[in-house]
Amino acid sequence: MNTDNFNTDFTPLTVEPNRIYDYSFETILEEYGPHDYNDDEWSIIRRIVHASADFELGKSVILHPDAIRAGVESIRAGRPVIADVQMIQSGSGRKRFQKHGGDLFCHIADEDVSKMAKEHNTTRAIISMQKAARLHEGGIYAIGNAPTALLELIRLIREGIAKPDLIIGMPVGFVSAAESKEELAKVTEVPFITNVGRKGGSTVTVAALNAISILADRQD
Amino acid sequence: MNTDNFNTDFTPLTVEPNRIYDYSFETILEEYGPHDYNDDEWSIIRRIVHASADFELGKSVILHPDAIRAGVESIRAGRPVIADVQMIQSGSGRKRFQKHGGDLFCHIADEDVSKMAKEHNTTRAIISMQKAARLHEGGIYAIGNAPTALLELIRLIREGIAKPDLIIGMPVGFVSAAESKEELAKVTEVPFITNVGRKGGSTVTVAALNAISILADRQD
Repeated sequence: MNTDNFNTDFTPLTVEPNRIYDYSFETILEEYGPHDYNDDEWSIIRRIVHASADFELGKSVILHPDAIRAGVESIRAGRPVIADVQMIQSGSGRKRFQKHGGDLFCHIADEDVSKMAKEHNTTRAIISMQKAARLHEGGIYAIGNAPTALLELIRLIREGIAKPDLIIGMPVGFVSAAESKEELAKVTEVPFITNVGRKGGSTVTVAALNAISILADRQD
Repeated sequence: MNTDNFNTDFTPLTVEPNRIYDYSFETILEEYGPHDYNDDEWSIIRRIVHASADFELGKSVILHPDAIRAGVESIRAGRPVIADVQMIQSGSGRKRFQKHGGDLFCHIADEDVSKMAKEHNTTRAIISMQKAARLHEGGIYAIGNAPTALLELIRLIREGIAKPDLIIGMPVGFVSAAESKEELAKVTEVPFITNVGRKGGSTVTVAALNAISILADRQD
């Protein structure tokens, strides 16, 4: 690659990733206002705000009191992480879980999932959750797109078929998204991270997942 | 895969993707209120709102008057689409561009990009834009994450090194995101889709890109 056209005019603030994070997190703390979160909890919330630039969304988050401990232990034990869509898989990346002996899976584009969804006239999202529950033991489910995936996962838990360590459930949208998250907030068997309302999506789900994985990396 | 645990209780509304879109788009039209967009323009706006459930974000969008024509022609001509991050590549998918003879590229994880960014103490996002400008002729640049990528692309255009057909520039965040989009809105050489403020991100960038590709698929 030719390097004639390099630009060296950017300020350090613009090109040093750690300083960008620090500055962003300071701004978020300032503008969010007073809160009762402990440091670990706040590290989740501020990353969700960072990924969305949306304080309303940040303030709509519900953190189950056992969510962080469960998520950190799951990653450290090398248990699987299951994403509903590939955007989450590529946004979070497999490496951060592989280094603990785990991995990040997404079954929505699997050929057998697609085939079975057609046969049964249902969504690939639903079938992909059924496949994940059969294939993987425990783990973290990160659902940011498909309300049907989240509703199906909740059903599988209630029927004793799935037993995740943690659910990060933040699907976005106008059909069933808010309702699926209301259902998640009623789940007693599994800790969760979710939010109230229509907002959510893959980027904020990745933000929450990455915040948990950063806590799992910490030496303590 | 065993199929013991199929659920057939979901209502048709929940599992038929086309009906979910129709219902969502009706709701968005209703709640958005009066607007002056033509049908093609509205198909971009409503998809951005659909992906974010955020009307404020939807109303902050700036559509260059030539953006849709330029994007549709670019895709139909099989020209490249370049994403700043892999979330956009996996969220939009390569197939929708390959069927027109094009493809969707993302250079941020390329080995030479990573090496050169370290050597020059700059971001991979900046180097990846330089690589894209050298490697590809024209095309659509879809930037949803890195303000530095967008600022660098604008610089490359001003210096006559890059000449995209269309820029979809909607990075999110607290450092340089809003500023980079203000710069984009001043660009006269290339049509653009952008928005005002800190909000944005990969999911809404994918939404705008997919809306353009749906228009490119249309027979007219």
